[in-house]
Amino acid sequence: MTEPGAASGAPAPVFILVGPQMGENIGACARVMGNFAISQLRLAAPRDGWPNPAAQAMAAGSPVLDNAQVFDDFEAAVADCHTLYATTARPRGMVKPVLTARQAMARARSELEAGMRVGVLFGAEKSGLPNAAVTRASAIVTLPVDPDFASLNLAMACGVMAHEWRAGDPAPDMFEPLADRAGAAEMEGLYAHLQDELERAGFFYPPEKTPLMMQNLINGFARGGLTSQEVRTLRGVIKALTLGRGKARIVRED
Amino acid sequence: MTEPGAASGAPAPVFILVGPQMGENIGACARVMGNFAISQLRLAAPRDGWPNPAAQAMAAGSPVLDNAQVFDDFEAAVADCHTLYATTARPRGMVKPVLTARQAMARARSELEAGMRVGVLFGAEKSGLPNAAVTRASAIVTLPVDPDFASLNLAMACGVMAHEWRAGDPAPDMFEPLADRAGAAEMEGLYAHLQDELERAGFFYPPEKTPLMMQNLINGFARGGLTSQEVRTLRGVIKALTLGRGKARIVRED
Repeated sequence: MTEPGAASGAPAPVFILVGPQMGENIGACARVMGNFAISQLRLAAPRDGWPNPAAQAMAAGSPVLDNAQVFDDFEAAVADCHTLYATTARPRGMVKPVLTARQAMARARSELEAGMRVGVLFGAEKSGLPNAAVTRASAIVTLPVDPDFASLNLAMACGVMAHEWRAGDPAPDMFEPLADRAGAAEMEGLYAHLQDELERAGFFYPPEKTPLMMQNLINGFARGGLTSQEVRTLRGVIKALTLGRGKARIVRED
Repeated sequence: MTEPGAASGAPAPVFILVGPQMGENIGACARVMGNFAISQLRLAAPRDGWPNPAAQAMAAGSPVLDNAQVFDDFEAAVADCHTLYATTARPRGMVKPVLTARQAMARARSELEAGMRVGVLFGAEKSGLPNAAVTRASAIVTLPVDPDFASLNLAMACGVMAHEWRAGDPAPDMFEPLADRAGAAEMEGLYAHLQDELERAGFFYPPEKTPLMMQNLINGFARGGLTSQEVRTLRGVIKALTLGRGKARIVRED
């Protein structure tokens, strides 16, 4: 398991495979990323562990594979990312912009130029991305597959995105990325803080609805993004609102 | 071996694999073509014959594979095509427009709307497209691969082109496709006629330069395309110019 590393070479998105199953696909992703000069591959909890000889065989000597970083889980793999794009074909019932590959990569270009770290998320072969990952993305990317034959190979999805990155449109003039954008780890801190206090307040009712209600709340924050300052402010807001409630005996003794 | 078939469904380019080697790659091409709703796959002289179980395994049930057409050689596979796009990374020293995938598919859209049949050519895994195939294309398509790691998987090249077809730009307003465009078989008839008469006239000197000189001549015709009427006219021109020369003893007796 490795720490999120510094970008090598010119800034490009980081491709993050979430729970990939077959080494062959991981290797083919690394190969096509090398073809289109995207150097940073991350693996969140690859099914068959790491290293994987099948990946090596399919990578055709791509330097991307040797530099791949492996993480225990999704959260660790995205911790330093400022924006995430979730590739998924399935509608998720989330209020979230749906972009073409081209639009997403043009937005990513703006964000990278503004110094942000951009992750593109790819789900496992069978199951796709978990809802928790899609929820944390600022946008969904959907490729225009035929609904009658929609099963796109994982490496092919990486290849299409990689080509769009390399061949794609320049950054749109009008897009103004957030300065000082909060990274995923800061956002997770906010979500955990919020959930904790809302549970204490009996907000989640019935309790089994907690995951869905949190998903909707997180979607709202993830969509537009927050600056680090805004995250700090919001956490101050939560703290202020909860003063004098429940655990606050200590506070009242102040 | 099959005859060139009618288009099935909405008009889309025909993908033509020239001398493909590995069944796995043929199957993966068929799969991604199915994903992006390109139905016509042609194989010119596949190395391992046909059908190929490895192709079946990788196609993941794509209907494109079942409908794939197999031809003895390149010439038969393209006989009914009006324009050809040659995907190649290597510069060929030919006077020929070099397009991005997006530009090529936008031009193809115009041509298809004008009722033409458009072929996209993909070469063999190791060797790429033969010069004779590139020569006959109206344009070269080059993907922006990193020169330090340029070896793009065959199916990945198909996938990138298929996505550009499906997701790509609409036909450019300004492009005016040729009406009554001559098919590849008519063009071959012209080339053969011309070469025959030029040989008779001692045009190719030294004789070993014949292939290269013909390549340059063919490039000139293939680039802009000709109508069927223009081909007939040119063949009349050749006939007229050669009247009374060499074989023309009979003519002089008229």
